[in-house]
Amino acid sequence: MDHDEIERILDKTIPESMARRGRTTIDALLAPVRDVLNRRIFPESSLSDPQIELMVQILSSMDTDKDPDAARVGEREARVASPFVGKLAANFNHGIGRSGQLTAPQPKAAGASLMQQVANSTALDAIRKLGLSNAKSGLVIPLSTGMSIALVMGALRRELGIERVLYPRIDHASPQRGIALAGLEEVQIPTVIEGDAVRVDLGDLEKKITNTKSCAVLATTTFFPPRESDPVKQIARLCSDHDIPFVINNAYGVQSQDTMMQIRSAIDAGRVDAVIQSSDKNFLTPIGGSIVVSPNQEVIEWTADTYAGRATAAPVIQTLAALLALGHERYKELQKQQLENLALLKDNLLNIAEKINQRILEVNNPVAFAITMDNLDVNEIGARLYNARVTGPRAIKKGNYGSSTDNYPHSYIVMNAAIGVRKEDVVIATTKLLKEASK
Amino acid sequence: MDHDEIERILDKTIPESMARRGRTTIDALLAPVRDVLNRRIFPESSLSDPQIELMVQILSSMDTDKDPDAARVGEREARVASPFVGKLAANFNHGIGRSGQLTAPQPKAAGASLMQQVANSTALDAIRKLGLSNAKSGLVIPLSTGMSIALVMGALRRELGIERVLYPRIDHASPQRGIALAGLEEVQIPTVIEGDAVRVDLGDLEKKITNTKSCAVLATTTFFPPRESDPVKQIARLCSDHDIPFVINNAYGVQSQDTMMQIRSAIDAGRVDAVIQSSDKNFLTPIGGSIVVSPNQEVIEWTADTYAGRATAAPVIQTLAALLALGHERYKELQKQQLENLALLKDNLLNIAEKINQRILEVNNPVAFAITMDNLDVNEIGARLYNARVTGPRAIKKGNYGSSTDNYPHSYIVMNAAIGVRKEDVVIATTKLLKEASK
Amino acid sequence: MDHDEIERILDKTIPESMARRGRTTIDALLAPVRDVLNRRIFPESSLSDPQIELMVQILSSMDTDKDPDAARVGEREARVASPFVGKLAANFNHGIGRSGQLTAPQPKAAGASLMQQVANSTALDAIRKLGLSNAKSGLVIPLSTGMSIALVMGALRRELGIERVLYPRIDHASPQRGIALAGLEEVQIPTVIEGDAVRVDLGDLEKKITNTKSCAVLATTTFFPPRESDPVKQIARLCSDHDIPFVINNAYGVQSQDTMMQIRSAIDAGRVDAVIQSSDKNFLTPIGGSIVVSPNQEVIEWTADTYAGRATAAPVIQTLAALLALGHERYKELQKQQLENLALLKDNLLNIAEKINQRILEVNNPVAFAITMDNLDVNEIGARLYNARVTGPRAIKKGNYGSSTDNYPHSYIVMNAAIGVRKEDVVIATTKLLKEASK
Amino acid sequence: MDHDEIERILDKTIPESMARRGRTTIDALLAPVRDVLNRRIFPESSLSDPQIELMVQILSSMDTDKDPDAARVGEREARVASPFVGKLAANFNHGIGRSGQLTAPQPKAAGASLMQQVANSTALDAIRKLGLSNAKSGLVIPLSTGMSIALVMGALRRELGIERVLYPRIDHASPQRGIALAGLEEVQIPTVIEGDAVRVDLGDLEKKITNTKSCAVLATTTFFPPRESDPVKQIARLCSDHDIPFVINNAYGVQSQDTMMQIRSAIDAGRVDAVIQSSDKNFLTPIGGSIVVSPNQEVIEWTADTYAGRATAAPVIQTLAALLALGHERYKELQKQQLENLALLKDNLLNIAEKINQRILEVNNPVAFAITMDNLDVNEIGARLYNARVTGPRAIKKGNYGSSTDNYPHSYIVMNAAIGVRKEDVVIATTKLLKEASK
Repeated sequence: MDHDEIERILDKTIPESMARRGRTTIDALLAPVRDVLNRRIFPESSLSDPQIELMVQILSSMDTDKDPDAARVGEREARVASPFVGKLAANFNHGIGRSGQLTAPQPKAAGASLMQQVANSTALDAIRKLGLSNAKSGLVIPLSTGMSIALVMGALRRELGIERVLYPRIDHASPQRGIALAGLEEVQIPTVIEGDAVRVDLGDLEKKITNTKSCAVLATTTFFPPRESDPVKQIARLCSDHDIPFVINNAYGVQSQDTMMQIRSAIDAGRVDAVIQSSDKNFLTPIGGSIVVSPNQEVIEWTADTYAGRATAAPVIQTLAALLALGHERYKELQKQQLENLALLKDNLLNIAEKINQRILEVNNPVAFAITMDNLDVNEIGARLYNARVTGPRAIKKGNYGSSTDNYPHSYIVMNAAIGVRKEDVVIATTKLLKEASK
Repeated sequence: MDHDEIERILDKTIPESMARRGRTTIDALLAPVRDVLNRRIFPESSLSDPQIELMVQILSSMDTDKDPDAARVGEREARVASPFVGKLAANFNHGIGRSGQLTAPQPKAAGASLMQQVANSTALDAIRKLGLSNAKSGLVIPLSTGMSIALVMGALRRELGIERVLYPRIDHASPQRGIALAGLEEVQIPTVIEGDAVRVDLGDLEKKITNTKSCAVLATTTFFPPRESDPVKQIARLCSDHDIPFVINNAYGVQSQDTMMQIRSAIDAGRVDAVIQSSDKNFLTPIGGSIVVSPNQEVIEWTADTYAGRATAAPVIQTLAALLALGHERYKELQKQQLENLALLKDNLLNIAEKINQRILEVNNPVAFAITMDNLDVNEIGARLYNARVTGPRAIKKGNYGSSTDNYPHSYIVMNAAIGVRKEDVVIATTKLLKEASK
Repeated sequence: MDHDEIERILDKTIPESMARRGRTTIDALLAPVRDVLNRRIFPESSLSDPQIELMVQILSSMDTDKDPDAARVGEREARVASPFVGKLAANFNHGIGRSGQLTAPQPKAAGASLMQQVANSTALDAIRKLGLSNAKSGLVIPLSTGMSIALVMGALRRELGIERVLYPRIDHASPQRGIALAGLEEVQIPTVIEGDAVRVDLGDLEKKITNTKSCAVLATTTFFPPRESDPVKQIARLCSDHDIPFVINNAYGVQSQDTMMQIRSAIDAGRVDAVIQSSDKNFLTPIGGSIVVSPNQEVIEWTADTYAGRATAAPVIQTLAALLALGHERYKELQKQQLENLALLKDNLLNIAEKINQRILEVNNPVAFAITMDNLDVNEIGARLYNARVTGPRAIKKGNYGSSTDNYPHSYIVMNAAIGVRKEDVVIATTKLLKEASK
Repeated sequence: MDHDEIERILDKTIPESMARRGRTTIDALLAPVRDVLNRRIFPESSLSDPQIELMVQILSSMDTDKDPDAARVGEREARVASPFVGKLAANFNHGIGRSGQLTAPQPKAAGASLMQQVANSTALDAIRKLGLSNAKSGLVIPLSTGMSIALVMGALRRELGIERVLYPRIDHASPQRGIALAGLEEVQIPTVIEGDAVRVDLGDLEKKITNTKSCAVLATTTFFPPRESDPVKQIARLCSDHDIPFVINNAYGVQSQDTMMQIRSAIDAGRVDAVIQSSDKNFLTPIGGSIVVSPNQEVIEWTADTYAGRATAAPVIQTLAALLALGHERYKELQKQQLENLALLKDNLLNIAEKINQRILEVNNPVAFAITMDNLDVNEIGARLYNARVTGPRAIKKGNYGSSTDNYPHSYIVMNAAIGVRKEDVVIATTKLLKEASK
């Protein structure tokens, strides 16, 4: 609906001043949508759900499957079994990408193609504004971080000929599966225990960087205590010195200003090929997407070229919608609350520790704390917490997989106060922990 | 809402016979939903959109992020930036799978886990009922066929040590990208021209099967004319004889009874490790999912184990919803219409061919026909058709990429009458083709 | 979103020909919406649900409660308790009308005001195209027919000073309540039995028209057999001769070409002040609205002036949406099916009558037939049909209220084949009737 | 879906502890819904939108039009022209009520009938909890206050034979239209100016109560300054003394604890037949419904009996949904904010008054203040405020209709800080007022 046409229609119906007000209202409502499509930046203010919904409808209405006059004789034409089936995809029925190129505009899907470009730009801008001002190019991938690691690594294998990935040990299966899917050999870098913290053995990493042929490094900024972040700045320098690709798994590090500053320094100080972050862990989307950024535009293009075929649009539109529903101001407010709730979590855990003769592990982590559960049946406590409707605590028994080292000397429970956490979550979870651990 | 409770509530409100009718109605409405969850088979009759929507809501309401009393202290808790963001995922905000296992039940997501199992069973049953009665296990993957090829091939590499994929040439980038992403070497099998048809050089394939170490075969049942289907039964026998894994890309072959019969024979006669089919091309879902089935349950498990991390639930619920919205009866009706429209397409193209002195290529294809455009500017005609709102025709200039051979002697245009096509599509597309080709 | 702006945005993103296709698609999708808003006629072709939904969103987005920059300091500002509450009103939160004038443009609600005007024009055009070509003015009222009778009668009382309503007996409470609510005295005109039919005693009506001071006539075109339509043409002539207002309750007569022709003749031949029809019974909307038309524009204005305050917009937008979802072509097709199903109903009832020694009443009715149930427990059969999930049959015991006469000599059951009925409805209902009546 | 069945289905799919968590979650989600249906009280805590939506779906799924096995042979069967048309009514397609009785259970609509009863009980409980603890019976009417006045007055005319309504002058057309629609004569009671306030001339009212045959009184608690509330307690005593029906138009008085206390005292001290309040002005629903309560159950029954036919369910479900989305706690919080914003409004207006040499009228009003605009072009200022997107201020020129007296000595502008108002509304509106009034 053209602005002039709305004007004409209104004018012949209702008093002129009312018509003007009607136009003003719809213009004001759509102004932020227009702004998103034109400027493609992480907006300062949130958009409302009706605004985002209208934007999504306008965009998906440009794909050819919405054309009532189209004659459709392809082998796939975005036909849907019922209106509800289309609704499950926000009617981006053509998905995104073309065979073998994730970001190629799809001729049948002008709307989805535009949507994807807006998502990529907006996500990059968000990552830049939230700390990585030296990121140059970005891509929203309709895959979670593990699969995105596969994609990035596959791109590096094809373009730079890497065959092995030096991987400072993290006890988490997904990234390892990602390395393996890309047909690469994982070379694990062991960790060392320093005080309570478990850290990468940097000496070993340096040695292997020197000795391993055709390798890249995959480091991690965010994992559960007692594992600490890998020192990305130092690793970036090593990679630069040895001309080795460096990929950072920044799964949920966007929320942490400190983590983002470290990555920015790494980019400035050495070589960083790609930084991968989860859409859902950082931007409150449903699980299924990630954002890859790089100081090197080529790496992003290679990555897009590595995706095999068209893809579901769902995680991309979810990511764009979440970025718009948040906006920079609300995100900063959520970051502030995260830090407050993290402090509260610490206080409550200290309190509990004192009461049950345990202690908090002294480990640097942007969203989590671990409390020892020595001489307690930590698995049982974990199971009871689950039944008591505490979701997400991580119970690790001394010696079991999970500490990113083979011989960690404590059993412990980890609790997180990540972005979006509410005060009640922390209060109830710690109350129940005390109850269950005191039994 | 418990049935007895509805009864009690109604009884104290309204006359007894009315209350009974109210319960009867809601029970009748939900009966097919109950049936889907209990029996998990491709239903004979369609479910209505309200029924499917209610089922989706019930399922997603079981995930812990819906629990108003949960205390959530994980690093990812399926929080969403706004209600609309959750709606974009049908509120399956936790996605599916656990780190490194696509089908593992997710403790935070009982509903999504159940949904996924129902989707897998229902999809397998549909594939079996539509022809592959000897398929034993199945999986709905939230990835399109190209990426699913990567996943299956990655699984075979890990479990069976394959290093190369013998790939009868198809001029389509996605599957090649899939092979490459899995870190495997593609060994292309050339084609030969026989009459109008382009077919795999079976002699060459047999030779390479014999000579190539650690290889698997990837054959294709559905592509554009003049390329014909690979003879999967013969290849399955060869693979069986040489103990080589065999994967079939059956992208849009489910709609064709003939294609399905050939694959069933292949399974019976030789070795088939996996058959991959597109959700959208066969079952009218938005783009983004595929269904992998196998006579060998292990292969499906390996494939699920190859996915790196959790995944978006969107393509899975879209596939399940589409299967239910179709049902077997409506699917058979659509198959019947497809054949009728295919015959119509042929008639119309024959007609055009006569008028403009061209001819239809004599090639076996379950959904498409190609008409020669010799001595015409076929690219220009293709562009004009696009602007004339005919979507999906494929215009290939003699000598250009697309014919799956280097020296095909014709320019031509392909049109499809695939499942879901309407009579108008065929009529309008061919009318416009005649107009544009006569200019 | 301005067309030029969409153009600019697309052009800087994607190839020019794709951008053009995107614009073409959204333009084609919105063209019928634009047409509805501009021309305000009953469209020939149906609009699709996405088109209607988009139109509703555009319209409700013009009301001031959507203006993010408005400062709202009235005593009522269309604030809603939650987004879902607004959705229940399609976000027409300001309702329609101003205090004491149902059709007055509401300054806070440009969109709703426009919507209402479009609804009024489209409904009038539909009524005209479906037979009442001599209707001059029309109004969609957010009240069912009974309450609309009250409104029209109230208007006539105020403007023309009527005090009594001559009302040919129909055994239906709603119109009587409508007359009473308007503070008018109902003067019942008795019926006579002629053959099987129950008809108004025209002689008595004429006598009362002559003798009753300050009266109007309310006649009815559609009721259950054995009651037949009132002879509106003859009554219109009488009313013209005696200068008495005449209102026609045409509850579900729009679907019947014959009924509409009779009313058109009545308007041509005599005096008709208003014709009232149900939205739901004729146009497949949820219950709650009606359409009043008149050859006399003043009567419509008086009626709008009689409504006390603002009103819910829901029945108005439902009526507009239904008119657009139908369109003239689909409506004619439904009329055709209605006649076919009516014939089928007759056949099946004749069949049953023969089997159980009853007969069909010989009564003229555009949608229904009655079958005698003499010497059977008709109430029990009615109750059993209800429990057997046959909805809508009307079981009347000889001598009971319902036949519009005191001494009708039969028990009987009425079944309808009204617009929208499916063949299955008729088949199943008659099958069950035979079963229950044979017990 | 039966709880036991969900249990069985989950158990055969996923680990037992997960299945238990899934059930716990859906039970916890539905518990407040169950509670609403069972107890039918104004809940302490809000329900979330997904909870309310699920409740609405469960209820509307009990109406027979949802029964896939029903055979429908009535003249109206809640068929809808398209799924979207049904959605516009939350699928309560059968509406509510039976011919001539608004609250009669409708055999075809068990769900809607139940919904309506829950709405009536919940609304009554809310009114009682918010101050009118001596209300005994209540009814949600799908009509705004003006039309509800017609309904109540019509009931009193029929049952008690009233012919005239003594109506203390309020310059508002809707209630007058309501009186007129019911066929009653309005006898206006003049006002007197006392200080700045305009009040009913109580002496005149008493005189007319004594002298007027067959009359009732309609008083008003909420209107714009300078008009003050009618002294309902004194009037109730007079009505009791003279045995005259007394109806209170409490349009937006529910939000005011003070107003509610006065009405409660009136009920205790004298005779009150009905109290009518707007759904939207008090409970943040879209316009179109009202709540009538009474200490006398008969009056409510008479009122329900006066409605002519079935009615749209929309305003009823909107009212119920809003009551649940609010809950008592959130309502009290909104009342607190309303008082704070009212104080802010007063401060800001005082400030402006000082700057532009005007003053605030000293009038008692629970939500509004008026500032004089003497010697200014108040109409022009009002128009400019409208264009400046300030909605709801009321600009009255000295001598014009609106002051509820003929000779009010000031021009003035009224601004409201009614329930739901935000601080920004007050700040921006007053800022703009200062700007426009200073021009």
